[in-house]
This record gives sequence, structure tokens and C-alpha cells, in this order.
Amino acid sequence: MRLSSLLFLVCFFTVAMSQCAAAAKARHFRWEVSNMFWSPDCEEKVVIGINGQFPGPTIRAKAGDTIVVHLKNGLHTEGVVIHWHGIRQIGTPWADGTASISQCAINPEETFTYRFVVDKPGTYFYHGHYGMQRAAGLYGSLIVDVADGEEEPFKYDGELNLLLSDWYHESIYTQMVGLSSNPFRWIGEPQSLLINGRGQFNCSLAAAHTPGAKQCAGAGNRHCAPVILPVLPNKTYRLRVASTTSLASLNLAVGNHKLTVVEADGNYVEPFDVDDIDIYSGDSYSVLLTTDQDTSANYWVSVGVRGRQPKTAPALAVLNYRPNRASRLPASAPPATPAWDDFARSKAFTYRILGRGTPPPPATSDRRIELLNTQNRMGGVVKWSINNMSMVLPATPYLGSLKMGLRSALPSAARPSDTFGRGYDVTRPPANPNTTVGDNVYVLAHNATVDVVLQNANALARNVSEVHPWHLHGHDFWVLGYGDGAFRGDAGDAAALNLRNPPLRNTAVIFPYGWTAIRFVSDNPGVWAFHCHIEPHLHMGMGVIFAEAVDRVGELPKAAVSCGATATALMAGAGAGGHV
Amino acid sequence: MRLSSLLFLVCFFTVAMSQCAAAAKARHFRWEVSNMFWSPDCEEKVVIGINGQFPGPTIRAKAGDTIVVHLKNGLHTEGVVIHWHGIRQIGTPWADGTASISQCAINPEETFTYRFVVDKPGTYFYHGHYGMQRAAGLYGSLIVDVADGEEEPFKYDGELNLLLSDWYHESIYTQMVGLSSNPFRWIGEPQSLLINGRGQFNCSLAAAHTPGAKQCAGAGNRHCAPVILPVLPNKTYRLRVASTTSLASLNLAVGNHKLTVVEADGNYVEPFDVDDIDIYSGDSYSVLLTTDQDTSANYWVSVGVRGRQPKTAPALAVLNYRPNRASRLPASAPPATPAWDDFARSKAFTYRILGRGTPPPPATSDRRIELLNTQNRMGGVVKWSINNMSMVLPATPYLGSLKMGLRSALPSAARPSDTFGRGYDVTRPPANPNTTVGDNVYVLAHNATVDVVLQNANALARNVSEVHPWHLHGHDFWVLGYGDGAFRGDAGDAAALNLRNPPLRNTAVIFPYGWTAIRFVSDNPGVWAFHCHIEPHLHMGMGVIFAEAVDRVGELPKAAVSCGATATALMAGAGAGGHV
Repeated sequence: MRLSSLLFLVCFFTVAMSQCAAAAKARHFRWEVSNMFWSPDCEEKVVIGINGQFPGPTIRAKAGDTIVVHLKNGLHTEGVVIHWHGIRQIGTPWADGTASISQCAINPEETFTYRFVVDKPGTYFYHGHYGMQRAAGLYGSLIVDVADGEEEPFKYDGELNLLLSDWYHESIYTQMVGLSSNPFRWIGEPQSLLINGRGQFNCSLAAAHTPGAKQCAGAGNRHCAPVILPVLPNKTYRLRVASTTSLASLNLAVGNHKLTVVEADGNYVEPFDVDDIDIYSGDSYSVLLTTDQDTSANYWVSVGVRGRQPKTAPALAVLNYRPNRASRLPASAPPATPAWDDFARSKAFTYRILGRGTPPPPATSDRRIELLNTQNRMGGVVKWSINNMSMVLPATPYLGSLKMGLRSALPSAARPSDTFGRGYDVTRPPANPNTTVGDNVYVLAHNATVDVVLQNANALARNVSEVHPWHLHGHDFWVLGYGDGAFRGDAGDAAALNLRNPPLRNTAVIFPYGWTAIRFVSDNPGVWAFHCHIEPHLHMGMGVIFAEAVDRVGELPKAAVSCGATATALMAGAGAGGHV
Repeated sequence: MRLSSLLFLVCFFTVAMSQCAAAAKARHFRWEVSNMFWSPDCEEKVVIGINGQFPGPTIRAKAGDTIVVHLKNGLHTEGVVIHWHGIRQIGTPWADGTASISQCAINPEETFTYRFVVDKPGTYFYHGHYGMQRAAGLYGSLIVDVADGEEEPFKYDGELNLLLSDWYHESIYTQMVGLSSNPFRWIGEPQSLLINGRGQFNCSLAAAHTPGAKQCAGAGNRHCAPVILPVLPNKTYRLRVASTTSLASLNLAVGNHKLTVVEADGNYVEPFDVDDIDIYSGDSYSVLLTTDQDTSANYWVSVGVRGRQPKTAPALAVLNYRPNRASRLPASAPPATPAWDDFARSKAFTYRILGRGTPPPPATSDRRIELLNTQNRMGGVVKWSINNMSMVLPATPYLGSLKMGLRSALPSAARPSDTFGRGYDVTRPPANPNTTVGDNVYVLAHNATVDVVLQNANALARNVSEVHPWHLHGHDFWVLGYGDGAFRGDAGDAAALNLRNPPLRNTAVIFPYGWTAIRFVSDNPGVWAFHCHIEPHLHMGMGVIFAEAVDRVGELPKAAVSCGATATALMAGAGAGGHV
């Protein structure tokens, strides 16, 4: 255990937090979420901003600090929450920021206080977790440095922060209606990719190298001005890269420069060198880059689409070797994004990610949950299902309803299954017509070692199986292995898992027609979402809920349960009739 | 008092409502509000519908009936409420359906039950009253017939129902952001006018008579198919007309036919004949029409814009003399809408509306509240203010916070003034820089007779004073008089008011640079909005709140106070920590 973690634990169990001020401090933020006009890719639309900014402000803290965000909802008629992606919320499950799961959505004009400890250094981000508000622009970076006196296991001279996203011109309202409509309307591919909230629609910064593209006009200080990343020659930089895309799987490369991967999802990994990295929605990485190239030039940072046939131009940023002018665009062509369907290449990258200095997983597990995803049609509407149940989110958040024993507040009485059986042919479209909607709540015992096998399969269309990056709240997990086809269980694949040095992550991808096996310890009482991080897929029901030792959760803040059946239950007996 | 009213009172104070079944019955409705694709004027956009319909279902009841609407919110992230416009909600102020005022907005996936008595026959409607959801299509008709055994004071053979609205192609989200932006972005004039939710954008049903217009293609059974009003020759029809426009003041005429005005806002009026009627947002009328014209022809019903320079084509419907084919469009030109700025004509129409069989007002009033409206700039954002205070709507609805004495839940400590003084020049743009935002809550004693004088004035631009139709919740009021210029008070105008046969209404217009005086008795304990019915004007703060004998309000349904400070107060002591 690191010193910072130890100090954090001491502080956590010490009533007078101020005694720990030397080791960790509380960082306060007052934020207001509101709709505003913004032009991320030079096209104006209504964007959800924080304090008038898009993306939201970057939070920077040190491991062990307490983050306190007073979040006011300045939207007119919509609720809002913010999820702190990658932060485990140990002891504070009500601050996880998932509507219908960890808390009641914050009503317009209300302020909710998120208070949580960032216990582990790393590259994180935050984002809306209600409806598809993330896709409307509600996100920002959260970067946790090592605690004072600690050191990272690698050296660098400077940092560059790249928060990646994709961008749609249709409003999220239109997108959500389409996804719930019969006939179904898919959101399609994004119009633009954004780096730190900036992109260029319908033009290219590198038109000379992009057949058919026109050169972007000088954007000056507009919302869509190119991102400039200033560096000095012969230094090593840490690029922090995180993806909050709605749909797109991405690949990032820097012209002429190698990258050394050193961190994934807030955990150190065994360093390895690559020309480019794949990054799925929900992932974060740190890569080291050394500015050892011709110092008279600037270089392109290019972010393109992988895993789906790309219909969106790459996003470009400028690695600006000082003292070159920032406005001097690189003369060379931007690095080409690898072929979208070269999954062998994607797998090779993903499989190289191994833990460094992270604890090994328990040698055996107490329970294995096998989750098959299928696409199904229910009442004419296309849904994603897990073991034949499509997740719906109820009016009363699970954390409150489960803690208070309000079973009638759950969407369904049926409990989801731990397995889909072995009879399923993952290469064929689903034949199962008996799909249902439900709460998909898996109840986990305290301190159990849980394996989850995510099994991919064919979607409704023939010969289509998509990439899905699954994200777990409240935990890191070990990624024990990946495979193609159907998971063969104890007889086959289970015996071949990596128990020696698997990486710790919070997001893991499943490849088309493949499976991914993860392991975690249910040591964090709370109710945690586990879901595909693709925004429309989650909206279509692609997720489950882990209800973990809910009886050990501390007293819930009133504001987290001030809605639905929990509010009704808590108000019962108090009476609304008399003057107070 | 009518028999039906007497029976209603008997029923109201009888525990076993079923004993009153013969006289009045409960009518139950299960509604779900959701966003859906719809093409009201042939252009598709996201529309708020009820049970998949736009406009929402028509409610038809008899005086004395109890309406029970189980309203499920099927929106994804937005709250919702429905206001029953013109229904006084005697004894049920929590069912008035005004977010932040009478109840907490209904959260997504929640169901709220509206239960109220429709005590008075008339032409009403219902609509959303949260943000600008009315403008997104959340509305429908509510028609109350006389109770069994009662008769209307006029005869007719059939009915035609016309719910009028205007239509914008921009989403309400974009509209709301624009209205709150610096620089301010006005919503502009509507793209279309709709009759019963149908209009035709960018084409005309009567192109031959409309220079520059192209003929609409046959719309068949599409959302924007023309409204057909079938009639038989030589009969008298009651046209029920209500306007739920966001902005537009309208004028309705029927080619070749006279109209006899008999009802306004659910109250009978002295019949008078006209060629056309003006109808402002929030108004409803019944007019009688006799089918005494050439029976071989069909006729246009035309609805055009008044009061603002019209940039929107009239809406047309077909009065179809059977057995003529419905698809035979009238050969004649649609009736021309009177000049938009002929306010003398508008005033002449409005001034002719007088009460018929309605009780006279009390001879004197206990209090006079004079409300000057001005347009002001606050922090670069354009606001409407009343006596220098622009109304904001708080997180905790007033009915709950006032009844429970939670003063800290009010937006401001400052109480609004009963007068703006006489120093103001209504013909000049406001010079007052000390405008503020506040709750604009006027506390009214029980059973007081209250006069309100609405004073119009110049907006921010020179020589601009707009029409504002003000709507009162929870009451009808007598319209005692109108005048031009500044109201001269006791010395002048107050003495000349009509106390003999003023009409009872729930909506009254103020003309440019003019004033309108109303009187009502505060005999309905509750918290009632009084506001300009123009949706963007209300959104910009043009309204006040009447808190009336709140101590006499009965026990509030928990669901109406299950948010904000009222929920917090009611949950206090109950504790959220233990298992229930």
C-alpha cells in the first residue's frame, strides 16, 4: 500500500479531517450546468456547458484529496447528474452521479454537493449520466496527481491533456426519440471528432493531404480553433488521453513520434512502445512522447475512427515545437488511421496492456456471471439485452430503494440470470423472442471475488457484431483475458486466464464475436452500474446493476433519495398538512 | 346557484362521493407524455405528445364531474406538469399543474394523479406549464357540457372544436437558450399557425388566392392534412375556439358566415354578431354559426395573425357543407385577416364582451394592486418585469413552501410592491436600472375583493408596446374596464369602471400603452399564477404569484411536495440510514 493510500485511510477514519490537511486537502468547486450556444466544430448548436464553458472545467487534484463540487442545475426542465468516471467512490456510493442508480437527478435550480476522495493518481474524466446528456457536451477532465512525497514510476518534463469526443449535429432529444421509435432510427456516425471540445466540420486543417477536403478558414479564437499543444524540443511529455465519445472507437497517433503507454484507466501498466493507440469510449491512457524530431517543424496529432466504417474525418491538433509559430500547420500528411476493421491489430494492442506494480487478482473466484449481449426487437423498438433482459432505469434510484427495502420500486420482480447457457450460437442473429425489460440487478455478497464474462454475439443484422467497451462503476477490475467465439467455460478458456499480471482497469472492450473475462472483489458497498459506454447502447438497455452489500452502505444524503418511492417512504408519517 | 353547482357542493362535502354518481361522475384517463416525431405543418420535428397523439386527447365531461388523470412522464430527462386552463381547482390547488408554483414537476417514469372537479360548463383546454413545454406541443382541449338537466342559454344543432396554436421549427431548448442569452435572441414569428394541430408550412391550401404561394400537395392522412369541419345546411353550430399560441394573437373568420359570440373563457356573454373574432393566447370562445349559405360550396375557415406584424401565413380549414366532397377546396378567397395594427378594431371587439347571467362584482374592493410591465436588461439579458421585479420560479414550489412556512425556500426576501407610482411615462422606454429578480409573491387575505390594474408601457425599443394577454389561475375575474395611456386611479378611471355587467373571464388582454382593470374575490385558498400567457414572455419573467389564504389549504398530496425544501423538511427526522 502506498503511503498516500495509508494516509487517506487514516484520514478517512479520523473525525477531524483537518488534521490530515498536510497530506490531503479538500478542493471546492461551484459549478452551474446550463444549456448554451456553442460551436464545437464551427457549427452552432445547443450544448450543455459548465460555468459557461465547454468542455467543463478541468479538475486537478492530488491523490487523497477530497473533491467537493457544488453542482447547481441551471437547465430549465431537465434533471442532471455528473459521474466521476474512474473514481471508485469508496464509502461514498451516493456520489457516483448516476441518475436512477446512485441518486435522484438534481432538479432545475437545485444544488447537489458531490463530496468524494480521489484516492488514486491517474487520468480520469467526468460526464453526465442521465439520458444522453454526455453526448450533449456534459463532460470534462479530472486529473489526479500523485500525493506529495510520492513519485510516478516514470519520468516526464511536461504534460499535455487530450479529452477526445465525437460530435453530432442532431440534438440529443432527437437522437433519443429516434432510438425509442418504431421504426427505429439509428443516430448514425458522428459529424465530427473533437479534441478538447474542438473540431472542424466540413473542412480540414490538412486539406492538402485530404482528397476532396477544403482548407478550414483561420478560426482565430473561435470555439473551433485548432488545438495547439506547445512543446519544447528534446523533452519527454506525458499525454493524458481520455475518450468520452458517444459512439466512436478512436485511434490516436502523433506524426513522426513514438508513444510509450504507461497508464490505463488510472492504473500503471507495463510500458510498451507503439506508433498509435486505440482508445474506446470510457478508456483513459497516459502515453509518453519524446520531442526528438526535426525541431523546425510542427507535427499533427491525428484522431480517427476505428471499429466501425468511418464516415467522420479525423480530428487534428498541432504539436507545436517551440519556438515555431503555433499557426504554422505541419507540412507533412497527418498519420493515417489504421484500417477500421483490422481487428487483429486492435486486439494486438489491447492484449499488450499488462499490470505494473498493481496487486494480482485473487487466485479463485466465488461466482462467475456470464453476460451475453444480444440485440432484440421489443414492440417494434430495437433494444440491447443482457441475458435476454434489457435494462430500464426506474424513477426511484436503486441505491435508495434497495437500501430501504422498497422492492416495489424496482422495475421488475424477475431477477436476471448468471448465465445465458451454452446453447447460443454467437455468429447468428438472435432467435429468442422472449426478451423482456427489467432492472438487471445482480445482488453481490460483501467481499466476494466475482468473475464476469462478457460475451459478444451477432446483432440483429447478419454478419454484424460490434465493439462494446464496458465500464464498471465503483471498482477497478482485472482483465483476465480475451477470446474469439463463445467462451468455453471451465473446460477451456477459464483455465487459460492471466492471473499473474493482468491490468487493472475500469473499462474493457469486447471485440466482435468475442468474449472478455474480468475479475473484481465486491469490497465497496453500493449500487454500481456496469454497462456499455457507448451512449446510445446504454440508452437501448445495454447494462446491468451490481447491488453490493447494500446493508453496509452508510446513511444516504437526503438529497440523494429525495424523489420517487424513497421520498414517499421517508415523508410518510411526517404529514404535509400542518404548518411547520 | 345552479342545481349542478349545489349538487357539487353537496357531493364535495359528502365523504361517500359515490352517492353523487347520479349527478356527477368521475372520468378516468391514463396518459403518458413523451417526445415523438410529428409533422404538424408537414415539417418533422420532436413534439411532446400524449399517448402518441398531438394534440393530446380531448377531455369531454359534464359540469360537476371529477376528472382523474393519471399522468405518467415518459420524457427521458425532463419533468412535466399539465395545467387545466380555466378550471378553478376549488379546493384542489395542488392540481393546478404549474411547476414551481402548485406542485413539484413530475419526474421521468413517475405518475402523478390530477383529480379535480370541473364545476362549470365551458370551453377549456390544458397545456404544459413548465419551461416552454406548451410550445413543444403539450396541449389539448377540455370541454365541459352542462350537467344533466341543465340547458345552455342558446340553442345549436352541432359542435365544432377548434384548438388554435402557432408553431416554431426551432426546438424549445434552442428557444429557451436564446431567450436567456447575451446577446438576447428573440424567438421571432412562428413558422406556421395550426388548427387542431395541423398546418401547412411553405405552401397554401388556397394558393390561387395567395400571391407567391404554391399549392399544398394532397396531404392525405398525414399529420398536416387539412382540417375538415363537416356541417349540414341550415343548421346552427357551436364553434368552440381556444388559443394556446406561444406568441401570436389571432383572428378567426369563416368565409361568408357571420358569427355570434356567446361564451368567453367558460362564461356566458351577452350575444353579439361579428364577421370575425380576435383571440389571444389563453382565450377561449364559443361562437354560433348558421349554415345558411350556398349549399353547393365549401367555405374557408381562416386564422391569421393580429397585433404583431404578421410573417406567418394564415391557417386554413374547410367548412364542408355535406354532401359536398370534403376534398373540394373552396373556390372563393379565404376571408382576409384584419390589419394587424388596427387596434381600434381589436378594442371595439373586446369592449363588446359583456356578462350574461353572471353575478355582478362586489361594489367595492379591499385592495388595488397596480402592475406596470416593463422590459429591462439585467446582466445583458432581456427580461420582463412587473413593478421592477422579474419573476423567477424556484426549485421548491410556492404552494408547499408557503404552506409549510419555509421562507428560505423563496427566491428573495423582498416583497413586491402594490403600485409602481404615478411618475412613470408609459410612452418612453424604461430608465429604471434597478430592476431585480424575485418571487413576485403577493399575499392575499381570505375573501378579500382584489382589484388589479395591468398597466402596459413602452418596451426597450422606442415606440414599441405589445399586446399581453394575462391569465389568472384559480379564479375567474370581472373585467371592469380598459383604457389608453396611464391609469389615472381614483381621481379618474377608477370611477368609470363597469360594475353592472362586466364579463367574467380568466384571461384579459392589455393593449399597447393601455391598461386593463380586473376584480376578483380571493375565495379560493391556494397559490395562483397570474401572468402573460405569451410563452416567451412568461419565460422572461412576466408574471406574479397570488398566495391566497394558504393556511386554509387542505393537506397537500405528498407527490406535490416531493422535491426541494418541502421534501427535505418532510424527510427530516425520518432518517435515510436505516432499513425500512
